[in-house]
Amino acid sequence: MDIRDYRVTGGKKVVLAERPTTADKGADKDEIRKKLMPANIGEMANLQEKLYAENRNSLLLVLQAMDAAGKDGVIRHVMTGLNPQGTQVVSFKVPSSEENDHGYLWRINKALPRRGEIGIFNRSHYEDVLVARVHDLVRFSQMPPELVTGRIWEQRYRQIRDFERYLGENGTTVVKVFLHVSRDEQRERLLDRINEPDKNWKFSSGDIEERKHWDKYMLAYEQMLEHTATEEAPWFVVPADNKWFSRYLVSQIVLEALQAIDPKIPELPEEEKAKLEECRKILEEDRSR
Amino acid sequence: MDIRDYRVTGGKKVVLAERPTTADKGADKDEIRKKLMPANIGEMANLQEKLYAENRNSLLLVLQAMDAAGKDGVIRHVMTGLNPQGTQVVSFKVPSSEENDHGYLWRINKALPRRGEIGIFNRSHYEDVLVARVHDLVRFSQMPPELVTGRIWEQRYRQIRDFERYLGENGTTVVKVFLHVSRDEQRERLLDRINEPDKNWKFSSGDIEERKHWDKYMLAYEQMLEHTATEEAPWFVVPADNKWFSRYLVSQIVLEALQAIDPKIPELPEEEKAKLEECRKILEEDRSR
Repeated sequence: MDIRDYRVTGGKKVVLAERPTTADKGADKDEIRKKLMPANIGEMANLQEKLYAENRNSLLLVLQAMDAAGKDGVIRHVMTGLNPQGTQVVSFKVPSSEENDHGYLWRINKALPRRGEIGIFNRSHYEDVLVARVHDLVRFSQMPPELVTGRIWEQRYRQIRDFERYLGENGTTVVKVFLHVSRDEQRERLLDRINEPDKNWKFSSGDIEERKHWDKYMLAYEQMLEHTATEEAPWFVVPADNKWFSRYLVSQIVLEALQAIDPKIPELPEEEKAKLEECRKILEEDRSR
Repeated sequence: MDIRDYRVTGGKKVVLAERPTTADKGADKDEIRKKLMPANIGEMANLQEKLYAENRNSLLLVLQAMDAAGKDGVIRHVMTGLNPQGTQVVSFKVPSSEENDHGYLWRINKALPRRGEIGIFNRSHYEDVLVARVHDLVRFSQMPPELVTGRIWEQRYRQIRDFERYLGENGTTVVKVFLHVSRDEQRERLLDRINEPDKNWKFSSGDIEERKHWDKYMLAYEQMLEHTATEEAPWFVVPADNKWFSRYLVSQIVLEALQAIDPKIPELPEEEKAKLEECRKILEEDRSR
């Protein structure tokens, strides 16, 4: 498995229909679950410890997908095993009225991971070029009408590229994952939520409404991929019909992003180093009273 | 092991010197690490999933201790294995100037877990009756001087009791853990941080300074335990000289708190339930095009 097969760096037209939603060629589910995933997660945890100790860089994983594509499952299966001190998941829902009274990046900025942390966005600012585009929400927003022109999406793509470039230039590695599920597989999963009483609580009739706009969403995703994938903040189009494969692929993407950061246990600041000997002496003489 | 042996519900004088800092009587380290801890964590994760799904209650675990008592280790070893989507760790450091420009509970309120979440406070509002008391920080704060009277600590204990009662009455279970480490064990651990290059980064000469105030801290902890432990928001004085035992004990405390909440997978709201059949029909007819 080579994550570059799924990497999009922008500038080129993306046709989602031509990209696989299944890609488990020869993958052994048991080997993934019992060997490869735990190994990846263990290595992620090692690197996370150094990332946290070094307290310089951070990693932001953005997850976007259609309903039932497996975002929650990816978070649960890939990120459980990381130290929650240093891992931060933020789920973005319908904006509150306070959030709507600001630009769309306001709530995103507030939720960014700190240095040393791994941040995971379950949905993100990309909703503002996806659901907002499909349902033309900007037109019904508090945006000054004269600013809502035919160039609004083009502008937003540029704003997002600029924003993510700023993040990268200030120490946050941005990695973006689109879980690419087929329309048929979504149907099966939504039916499961209806048919299995234990999954009922996950069901929302709104998902059926959104499904009606499938083609519009695919177009919005394609535009988004073309215009917001960059060399520094690439998108990965992850085949998501096979849950285990998609989780494994995401773990590999996160692992390689951490490896690229290459965090190191930091050295003590010089002024603290100078005090080590003195402190050792104080402690050694300070036996119990 | 019975967690009630370590439970303090307040109103009575607490003498920390009389409480054990080691309590691994007969405990088998290997059994704890390989069997009992993983079992507890697995059960915590099960309950967490329900807590998250139900989206009603939340759990707040407050961790307080002297330096090197093992707070970070408890978080890492007890909480890794929970789903980070639904787990939130907040570390409280020296207040920023913005935080100091508000009452001491301002930053605490902002950091509270959402419904459905497990929140972990690595240090907390209790710093404001611990380090603040030992170093008389209130006197040098922006508090109106006429409000800083001899009753300031008594007032703060009451404010904290009131605050935590409010939390309980609004769905947040508050559980507080004091990791009780001995002065000798702290010395060993601080020496380790000096002697082992890989641990150097954790060392701060400030810890040696604070250690000089050990007795004052113990007094402040005793007062805190007496006046802020309640039936609804008890303190647990956890012997912390043995890391594995203390971690296991904390896992048991958290597990029993979750069991007391007894979260359930929620039912679908009535109006959504009514739509299930209709949605099933729509989906069943909506085979791939």
